[in-house]
Amino acid sequence: MMNEEDVQFWSKVSKKIIEEAQMAILPLVGTIKGGEIVKMGADGTPTKLIDLVAENKVVEVLEDTGRSVTLISEEIGEFKVGEGSSEVVFVVDPLDGTSNALKNIPAYAISIAIADASGIHKTHKNLENPSGSQNINSKTSKNQPQNQLTIEDIEIGFVKNLATGDLYEAVKGQGAMLNGKKLVPSTQEDISKSSIGAYIYRAEMNKVDKLCKAVRRMRILGSVAIELCYVADSTYDAFIDIRGNLRIVDISAAKLIIEETRGIVTDEKCQPLNGKLNVLERTSIIAACNPIIHSDIIQILGGI
Amino acid sequence: MMNEEDVQFWSKVSKKIIEEAQMAILPLVGTIKGGEIVKMGADGTPTKLIDLVAENKVVEVLEDTGRSVTLISEEIGEFKVGEGSSEVVFVVDPLDGTSNALKNIPAYAISIAIADASGIHKTHKNLENPSGSQNINSKTSKNQPQNQLTIEDIEIGFVKNLATGDLYEAVKGQGAMLNGKKLVPSTQEDISKSSIGAYIYRAEMNKVDKLCKAVRRMRILGSVAIELCYVADSTYDAFIDIRGNLRIVDISAAKLIIEETRGIVTDEKCQPLNGKLNVLERTSIIAACNPIIHSDIIQILGGI
Repeated sequence: MMNEEDVQFWSKVSKKIIEEAQMAILPLVGTIKGGEIVKMGADGTPTKLIDLVAENKVVEVLEDTGRSVTLISEEIGEFKVGEGSSEVVFVVDPLDGTSNALKNIPAYAISIAIADASGIHKTHKNLENPSGSQNINSKTSKNQPQNQLTIEDIEIGFVKNLATGDLYEAVKGQGAMLNGKKLVPSTQEDISKSSIGAYIYRAEMNKVDKLCKAVRRMRILGSVAIELCYVADSTYDAFIDIRGNLRIVDISAAKLIIEETRGIVTDEKCQPLNGKLNVLERTSIIAACNPIIHSDIIQILGGI
Repeated sequence: MMNEEDVQFWSKVSKKIIEEAQMAILPLVGTIKGGEIVKMGADGTPTKLIDLVAENKVVEVLEDTGRSVTLISEEIGEFKVGEGSSEVVFVVDPLDGTSNALKNIPAYAISIAIADASGIHKTHKNLENPSGSQNINSKTSKNQPQNQLTIEDIEIGFVKNLATGDLYEAVKGQGAMLNGKKLVPSTQEDISKSSIGAYIYRAEMNKVDKLCKAVRRMRILGSVAIELCYVADSTYDAFIDIRGNLRIVDISAAKLIIEETRGIVTDEKCQPLNGKLNVLERTSIIAACNPIIHSDIIQILGGI
């Protein structure tokens, strides 16, 4: 566990990253240029210019701290910043909702989740790289995950909706806030009146059909980080992605934010999420404002 | 057809309505109070405070013109403003995406469509009300439609996204603009690369399944007026609502805006929309950036 001083320090670094990344991408929002493919990312998907600009800024701010950090991020994979053993692991989605940003749909975000790095030291001391910055996941090594930390190890989470300026944040055990105000999730207990975010296209259609008929309103905004935070702030009553294709990296911060409001987050089979902190790990997710809505959704989807 | 002077005058009135309605609803955006149900609307659905506040402002600005207008709007039904025969018909959705506005999801809009009123005079002279303002659709008359104008008669259309400030406008035969700049729709011709808005939940699931597998990206933002304008400005390649439940009033302005960019708008059976201008008339819609994408969608849905 991080102590209070560490929490303060790394939270400040996170806010600096958010500010700098936001300024860096601004000239590319709503442009064709921002969507140009510049390379292949560590997760095996093409990297767009706007994603790279955002991620480069994350690296730059982390390097400026002079501290030792492992960065896990979509394009770069697992990347060591500074010398010696990492103090913390930063799990970052520098731009969640890239296609929204490029088309000026006002739902795109940066997501930052931080874990204490002691998990790395314990299990993978031999993989530490004492010579300073270097991309541990080289392309030839097929981006083998290098640490055994899981999403459960996240202690700090930030999600900022860059289009609206809304900043969500949580520290494990200390609750979650939106723009500095304590977050309260929805008290809705009737699924037939619920508003949900649902990534169900290309899922099994009989499940989709039942779910569509059970809820009041359905949205697909195109930014999972924001839509998970919508469960924390009562905009949504639940968020569902049953395609099994959701990156752990993209949900690490928002999961903590929901859980710190006492919302429920599991996979489609009602199991706790325990995905490893690397860019290849994927999952399904059922996040709900309370256990009643969560259990209704699990039942509708036939998960238990 | 309206002459240029009329177009100028009623466009100015529309912009005044938009400005005043936006200011009026602002204190209620993101509030619980704004969502309080205050009466039943003319369309048979409950009227929320924020909807009523917006609509009252529309009536107020129209009354201030001192001219004679028929207003068709969700809560009030068909309403006569001023004395004598109406010069024009205003078809207004004072707040499209009410639930988004109440939850601060940044996609809610005002939609204003204007038709020359000569269609009313020709066919329904006997229904004219020479005594000034009055709700023609009283609740006891079951909101019988009072005019024979159709969506094809719309000559001016405005949609403003009140969350982002984006203003879409079109005059029949003169093209369409976003924030004063000529609109150009997407040149996408490959359905497998397309981004679409799709209100398909509760539609026939075999159609939904085929559509979901055919496109690249799917969104449900919760404001039909905005999402139709997204077809006009190339944010989306197409917009689909096959629930058959879409109000003509809500799409009247956006349909003109799309058609003025040479986009294609039909119903699910590939027929031109010809719904009457009243709050009870409903339709399905397939709107696409070009005939190739449109025809692909129609085929996928088995409409022809």
